Amino acid sequence: MTAYGYELAGALRAGQTVLTAWSALPETGFVGLVAGAGFDAVTLDMQHGGHTEQSVWHGIEAITAQRVPAIVRVPVGRFEMASRALDFGADAVIAPMINSVDDARAFAAFMKYPPLGERSWGPTRAIGVRGIEGGNAYLGRANAETLAFAMIETRAALDSLDAILAVEGIDAVFVGPADFSIAWTGGERLEPTLDDMMDAVAGIATRAKKAGKLAGIFAADPAMVPRYAQMGYGLIAAGFDAAIVRKGADAVLSAARGDR
Amino acid sequence: MTAYGYELAGALRAGQTVLTAWSALPETGFVGLVAGAGFDAVTLDMQHGGHTEQSVWHGIEAITAQRVPAIVRVPVGRFEMASRALDFGADAVIAPMINSVDDARAFAAFMKYPPLGERSWGPTRAIGVRGIEGGNAYLGRANAETLAFAMIETRAALDSLDAILAVEGIDAVFVGPADFSIAWTGGERLEPTLDDMMDAVAGIATRAKKAGKLAGIFAADPAMVPRYAQMGYGLIAAGFDAAIVRKGADAVLSAARGDR
Amino acid sequence: MTAYGYELAGALRAGQTVLTAWSALPETGFVGLVAGAGFDAVTLDMQHGGHTEQSVWHGIEAITAQRVPAIVRVPVGRFEMASRALDFGADAVIAPMINSVDDARAFAAFMKYPPLGERSWGPTRAIGVRGIEGGNAYLGRANAETLAFAMIETRAALDSLDAILAVEGIDAVFVGPADFSIAWTGGERLEPTLDDMMDAVAGIATRAKKAGKLAGIFAADPAMVPRYAQMGYGLIAAGFDAAIVRKGADAVLSAARGDR
Amino acid sequence: MTAYGYELAGALRAGQTVLTAWSALPETGFVGLVAGAGFDAVTLDMQHGGHTEQSVWHGIEAITAQRVPAIVRVPVGRFEMASRALDFGADAVIAPMINSVDDARAFAAFMKYPPLGERSWGPTRAIGVRGIEGGNAYLGRANAETLAFAMIETRAALDSLDAILAVEGIDAVFVGPADFSIAWTGGERLEPTLDDMMDAVAGIATRAKKAGKLAGIFAADPAMVPRYAQMGYGLIAAGFDAAIVRKGADAVLSAARGDR
Amino acid sequence: MTAYGYELAGALRAGQTVLTAWSALPETGFVGLVAGAGFDAVTLDMQHGGHTEQSVWHGIEAITAQRVPAIVRVPVGRFEMASRALDFGADAVIAPMINSVDDARAFAAFMKYPPLGERSWGPTRAIGVRGIEGGNAYLGRANAETLAFAMIETRAALDSLDAILAVEGIDAVFVGPADFSIAWTGGERLEPTLDDMMDAVAGIATRAKKAGKLAGIFAADPAMVPRYAQMGYGLIAAGFDAAIVRKGADAVLSAARGDR
Amino acid sequence: MTAYGYELAGALRAGQTVLTAWSALPETGFVGLVAGAGFDAVTLDMQHGGHTEQSVWHGIEAITAQRVPAIVRVPVGRFEMASRALDFGADAVIAPMINSVDDARAFAAFMKYPPLGERSWGPTRAIGVRGIEGGNAYLGRANAETLAFAMIETRAALDSLDAILAVEGIDAVFVGPADFSIAWTGGERLEPTLDDMMDAVAGIATRAKKAGKLAGIFAADPAMVPRYAQMGYGLIAAGFDAAIVRKGADAVLSAARGDR
Ligand SMILES: [Mg+2]
Ligand SMILES: [Mg+2]
Ligand SMILES: [Mg+2]
Ligand SMILES: [Mg+2]
Ligand SMILES: [Mg+2]
Ligand SMILES: [Mg+2]
Repeated sequence: MTAYGYELAGALRAGQTVLTAWSALPETGFVGLVAGAGFDAVTLDMQHGGHTEQSVWHGIEAITAQRVPAIVRVPVGRFEMASRALDFGADAVIAPMINSVDDARAFAAFMKYPPLGERSWGPTRAIGVRGIEGGNAYLGRANAETLAFAMIETRAALDSLDAILAVEGIDAVFVGPADFSIAWTGGERLEPTLDDMMDAVAGIATRAKKAGKLAGIFAADPAMVPRYAQMGYGLIAAGFDAAIVRKGADAVLSAARGDR
Repeated sequence: MTAYGYELAGALRAGQTVLTAWSALPETGFVGLVAGAGFDAVTLDMQHGGHTEQSVWHGIEAITAQRVPAIVRVPVGRFEMASRALDFGADAVIAPMINSVDDARAFAAFMKYPPLGERSWGPTRAIGVRGIEGGNAYLGRANAETLAFAMIETRAALDSLDAILAVEGIDAVFVGPADFSIAWTGGERLEPTLDDMMDAVAGIATRAKKAGKLAGIFAADPAMVPRYAQMGYGLIAAGFDAAIVRKGADAVLSAARGDR
Repeated sequence: MTAYGYELAGALRAGQTVLTAWSALPETGFVGLVAGAGFDAVTLDMQHGGHTEQSVWHGIEAITAQRVPAIVRVPVGRFEMASRALDFGADAVIAPMINSVDDARAFAAFMKYPPLGERSWGPTRAIGVRGIEGGNAYLGRANAETLAFAMIETRAALDSLDAILAVEGIDAVFVGPADFSIAWTGGERLEPTLDDMMDAVAGIATRAKKAGKLAGIFAADPAMVPRYAQMGYGLIAAGFDAAIVRKGADAVLSAARGDR
Repeated sequence: MTAYGYELAGALRAGQTVLTAWSALPETGFVGLVAGAGFDAVTLDMQHGGHTEQSVWHGIEAITAQRVPAIVRVPVGRFEMASRALDFGADAVIAPMINSVDDARAFAAFMKYPPLGERSWGPTRAIGVRGIEGGNAYLGRANAETLAFAMIETRAALDSLDAILAVEGIDAVFVGPADFSIAWTGGERLEPTLDDMMDAVAGIATRAKKAGKLAGIFAADPAMVPRYAQMGYGLIAAGFDAAIVRKGADAVLSAARGDR
Repeated sequence: MTAYGYELAGALRAGQTVLTAWSALPETGFVGLVAGAGFDAVTLDMQHGGHTEQSVWHGIEAITAQRVPAIVRVPVGRFEMASRALDFGADAVIAPMINSVDDARAFAAFMKYPPLGERSWGPTRAIGVRGIEGGNAYLGRANAETLAFAMIETRAALDSLDAILAVEGIDAVFVGPADFSIAWTGGERLEPTLDDMMDAVAGIATRAKKAGKLAGIFAADPAMVPRYAQMGYGLIAAGFDAAIVRKGADAVLSAARGDR
Repeated sequence: MTAYGYELAGALRAGQTVLTAWSALPETGFVGLVAGAGFDAVTLDMQHGGHTEQSVWHGIEAITAQRVPAIVRVPVGRFEMASRALDFGADAVIAPMINSVDDARAFAAFMKYPPLGERSWGPTRAIGVRGIEGGNAYLGRANAETLAFAMIETRAALDSLDAILAVEGIDAVFVGPADFSIAWTGGERLEPTLDDMMDAVAGIATRAKKAGKLAGIFAADPAMVPRYAQMGYGLIAAGFDAAIVRKGADAVLSAARGDR
């Protein structure tokens, strides 16, 4: 079996725009269909979606079998799950609500092996799924080739941004515009594409780049993708699974009805 | 809970075109997403797809919760499963390879209660899923409101078509153009839209109508739907689940890349 | 592990009344709860209930772990599944719609090893679940200790009753009063406790006894049980799983509301 | 699909007694049967029961499909799961072992959107299950209509009760008499109905009411319910799932044996 | 993804001995471990083992991902399942109890496309799992590259052997020595390695070869393999899954106890 | 049903060497096969393996049904899961990365009932699985008969070893040589059997014994077991599930090929 290596880190560091599907429905076959449908990556969402340890275990296998990078978003503060996601073979972990340097350090500790962090050894599954040649080969590559994304989605996080970016072991930030808009409006409005928030959003990518780190963002509307890419975001989430099905049905039904 | 009654039979008898999605992937949440995406019906395929008793049990619930009719295609000769599909709450059952009057009679016997057929009593699940008021109400309605589709997909079936259409308890025929093209070419070619087969295909709908029965067909390409509808086909399968996902991904990715 | 042997056959042959719960919901933990709640046996229904190969595989283990006999009703004509149910460790199989001597012979062939029948060898799972000492011990006991129940539920079956009872390998009949009432009324009514049907029902048990065979019946209402027992029915189904939950909730809620 | 809105908060605030079943067995169909059996609510127990992210995802759908409120008890300190339970569509979350104001604040932060708390945005599933009209409608209602129950079950919690009740975002307390009795007796005895504990128990409801908050309790014996209701407890847990099955079997077997 | 083509047919036709593991436990991860452990093929047993449509759907994917051929044994007479196993991507199907030419013809009809048989079109899953380039490519290869094994395990089958071997579409026979020994002893003994049966067993392979067909057999004891191979058996089943685990544990425990 | 009591604690306190299999694959039937294959115990790994709440719930039942002790390793810091593992019926819990006295105290608090710790009451499942006679009997035995293993696998842990051993409620230490070797080499090498680490390893067992506590260790190579046993380690992990399958396949294939 020719396994699929870690290619996400390299692609992002080379400046490519990586469009990731965003999976909430914890069903492996469907995850595999999405992974084979043309996206550059698939993210399994354990924070707000239905993904669980079990569906992540199976889902990473289904995604990488399609030769596509697999990303996992863990629930708030579930840093032990960040380690497990790597153990299960993920290319990257997105941790929500990293609002302080302490949060960032705790996350990094679970994502990186010593001496950088305190990740515990046990990547047997990842080694199998990824086709790595043995434990020491994995140990030598893991810290560099698997990525820690710290979510920036509150005012507190924004205030600590440079310090968070300076934490060793944090490879990237990831902006959550929905939460950010709630924070921005003092809990008044959900409006991920709020115009007067966009300078701040652009600034995050700029500061990440200056710190030598990567940046990602969730695009509630795919039409925002080019704009985010121009701001410097490399990893862009651009397709909820339910939206994919709805748009696919539209396309089929239009064709069937002779609409085009 | 307001349950969803049997509306497929009425819609088809009223001459409506019913576009059904075609589900091969046996995952309930995904089936529910498809059911909620705009199709007029969803068909669960146990013959060539991965659906099983278990996924049909759950899938019919997921489909009817979206107020959409649920259809089941059973494997060749699994007529006891046709009864079970009705017991689980299906609106209709499609039985493949009904090549003779004997096949049609055996299928009808499992689909209809006495004195019309020999279906055995036990629709507790259907009564619950459909919100029917008790056993005798169900008994009074089931033979008329749930539909038996006999697949016509070989030369033998075509030769016996009028006799099959005359079998009491067979409500409709359903054409399988893929198998039909293999039969038509003596095993040489798979070509569901083979041009010189189209008169025969059109003839099936005509003869069904003349016999007072309904007709359905599988459209390998959604663009065929208007033509089939014009021939007199009421139930038209027009969207594999994998195609839905692929087209949905295309739409999302096009938008994300600014292609339109 | 002290396994649970085959005790159903002996109990019925000794003239005991065996009350079996009737399970439609294919969930193993719930089956285990029911098995531990006081019934003399649990029947897993694959004909009209949601049970599948998988839920029968797990369910028999859960039932026998409670030291209770496990019975499986297979779908119409699924005699290969009758063999599998025995291979999975069942005490008995109930086959619906045994309407002729041919039906009975086909069923018996799948239930009994040669020279009595043609059951194929492979009871590894049963041997494990039941704690039998090796293959030849199982072979020596299986034909006698596992039971074939032929369902009598149509007029045709009634007409052939004595001949069916005479088939070697058929250990017992099992009456389905729901289907029987539909047959009795020419498809007009579902009425399992129809009074003018009761003499015929009683006659079935009498004739089974005369033929040296056992008899069972489904009691739509538990209040019918004493009457059926008096007619000579040994195995009586007396508790749908949904009814158990509803009555249990009634009892808890009455106590909570101080109703008693 | 007519979805089921959030009605638990209103019922409790109106002073109604809400009897909730208590589910430990993580099987969706069984949860649905219990939800349809007459209880005012169903609680899925992730602390001591077998419920998991997956069974809560499915269970909330099964419960609300019966138009019954769904409550989730999370494991000790799993506050991110409290958020997820709301994201999955729960009416309320019960958090065990809230022994201090810090515990209460941490819990509230995960249960309420800013500015009250720090709950992160992502209720797509809840919006679907509950039939809410879009994100901002949900944002406007969630803090008020979903409830945070802080469990009071140690001496430390009792000592801090008024301060806990004063925490914004804590809507209610919930008494765990089993743990409370172990604490009360210094680890000597499990005795949830311990008499000399009852004044303290009654006092908790009184103080909650005075603070303008709600109160709930676990009734180990359904006969305690009227007494607890009189003390001022609105949400009362009164039926383990295993007890429901056992009592239901008793009722069926009594009827079958002619005991009544 | 580099998929794994059909290599079993070629290996057997080239005279190689193919040792297949025999899987009864319907758990996909375990099936994958076995497939990666060195066997030449893995057979999923739906007749006496716990395998189901679902576990075969997933199991074939797990086996072929290890670049190992996947074989399915179907229950007695479940020929529609034989078609489905091929649709799911199997290399071969073993059908038990092929006791007559009629049995053999019915089996072959479901295994081969027209004009040879009547297999119905729908191998979407197989095409995906196997990486075939489109439908007509599959149609052109399937009849030759997927194999129908007819089990010879009764005296009736032995009597009809040459006629069975002459049935077009039957590619091979497969001997079941357990059933054969029960037949041989008139139901007296289970003794798969019965000495005076061995000439008959050897004769089956000889006659298969003469008819230009392949032969396989189940080796109850791995030590029988060389002898069977010498008789001319190419496909030899040589490892129950439970035995693999037991022997693996023995090896680990011996090493741990310093036994070697 | 004769349930299986808690025997692990007694065996270890009596000085026996207990060899535990180490399960990563979250499949219940396979766990049961391993439990029945001769090991003295089975450990379900939730830290680096695929085990989840659900697979632990089912797995403990499968293991104890074989009359073998069940151990659970939880993820880093998931102490609420330690409580749940006991509630599900485990004999012992292994907690990774106990690097300080604070870590040890937090772990112990979740493992022991008051007054020793703060474990919350709710062992209904354990009482059922283990056949304990009621709640107070369980309360009286649990603290002594279920074991808390604190993993020692960093330099920090080694530095605090005596203080960790002194924490009430910590019954034992468990050495993780893989992580220990990474720590020992400053992140340079994974080498669980590193020679110059062995004195330190031996010292841990010695100090545990002096403190009146038990000691366990993971043996990457079964050949290390006798040496570890001699150092004073009682619980020794000596068989990954994947290794068991591979070695079992080797044994079967060697026999089949006539290698011995
Ligand atoms: Mg967010
Ligand atoms: Mg077809
Ligand atoms: Mg019936
Ligand atoms: Mg408590
Ligand atoms: Mg056989
Ligand atoms: Mg470790």
